[in-house]
Amino acid sequence: MNLEQRLAELAIILPTSASAGAQYTPAVAFQNLVWISGQLPRDGERVVVSGKPGRDVSIAQAQEGARIALLRALAALRETVGSLDKVQQILKLNVFVNSSDDFTQHSAVADGASELIFALFGTEAGKHARTSVGVAQLPRNACVELDLVVALAP
Amino acid sequence: MNLEQRLAELAIILPTSASAGAQYTPAVAFQNLVWISGQLPRDGERVVVSGKPGRDVSIAQAQEGARIALLRALAALRETVGSLDKVQQILKLNVFVNSSDDFTQHSAVADGASELIFALFGTEAGKHARTSVGVAQLPRNACVELDLVVALAP
Amino acid sequence: MNLEQRLAELAIILPTSASAGAQYTPAVAFQNLVWISGQLPRDGERVVVSGKPGRDVSIAQAQEGARIALLRALAALRETVGSLDKVQQILKLNVFVNSSDDFTQHSAVADGASELIFALFGTEAGKHARTSVGVAQLPRNACVELDLVVALAP
Repeated sequence: MNLEQRLAELAIILPTSASAGAQYTPAVAFQNLVWISGQLPRDGERVVVSGKPGRDVSIAQAQEGARIALLRALAALRETVGSLDKVQQILKLNVFVNSSDDFTQHSAVADGASELIFALFGTEAGKHARTSVGVAQLPRNACVELDLVVALAP
Repeated sequence: MNLEQRLAELAIILPTSASAGAQYTPAVAFQNLVWISGQLPRDGERVVVSGKPGRDVSIAQAQEGARIALLRALAALRETVGSLDKVQQILKLNVFVNSSDDFTQHSAVADGASELIFALFGTEAGKHARTSVGVAQLPRNACVELDLVVALAP
Repeated sequence: MNLEQRLAELAIILPTSASAGAQYTPAVAFQNLVWISGQLPRDGERVVVSGKPGRDVSIAQAQEGARIALLRALAALRETVGSLDKVQQILKLNVFVNSSDDFTQHSAVADGASELIFALFGTEAGKHARTSVGVAQLPRNACVELDLVVALAP
């Protein structure tokens, strides 16, 4: 897979830095597994989609938030392992949606990230397990937070 | 371990399909680890235990929801790896309970799934780490969602 | 790394038992990965920091809760693998904060655990990925719950 080329084809530019907001690191690789920290839809230090989908922002906006958070996750991954071309398989995506008590479309929000994973990594390497839930709040009132476990090629 | 036989002894029939509700896959195997997607207590497309335990449903109903979700997780695992007999160890169970602000018996709900894991896999292979928390909402207003990380025999 | 000595230098005594509160086990090792169960800030059977930070307890108290929960996680790890000196890398820390709808300082609470990880394991082995979110409730009304994935030296 030439994922760096695929990013260019899709005209996607990863954020240059995905530095962690606090006392931890954006991603940790061990053997050929990588755990990526929870990512918010941030542009630099600013959260660009905040509040609760269905109340403060639309589903479409929350999906865009999930896409932005995913790109930050991939930026963290690239900073940690050198190139996204090393990715063999996206294993698990966890999506935490900032939810009111009556919001139940978490899967629709998470699809914003999942569809981008498929667009980037294709239907084989991009095939991932996923859990999405609705949480009471998120750091900085972000509308969505997501993290990943990824496998690298040997 | 002959887990397929154990299912028969317990008169448990796994759902024939655990297709994901959205843009992801029910389970992903990498080397001998398997990540299983978040599962709801669904019967086909219908969520059979919904709402918040202690308010909308009883603890016993929520435990039954956890059991149903676990069977879906095992169906997803079987579809992905071919046979549950390949399981060497249940590693981690994450349980997300649809919680009101004053519900604190998440462990009791999660025990519905953990007890079934022990009944099926025994005290060695079934020995699993677990995290259970109370979330604001879940997809389709399900009362519980759970996912698993599982190890396969070499 | 001589982590047992480091604990002594910091005058930290791990709780002697971190037995699980229900039908699961405190930690499970597979090959050189360990999954640790969700830990509450408990002293024996008693949760020592409960309620929602920013409303029922201060941020500082919640950070102390995160530290106490982390020590329980390390106690569970030591019970499972024999010695903390076997730890090669802290891979992932998940922090669930008991949140009101308007609390957004989950990272500050989680830093209570992350800073202790760095103090104990140093900046290399202690370098971990992290996800922190705000949940609606936690078992026993704990103010924070956390779990870990850890790698052992070969």
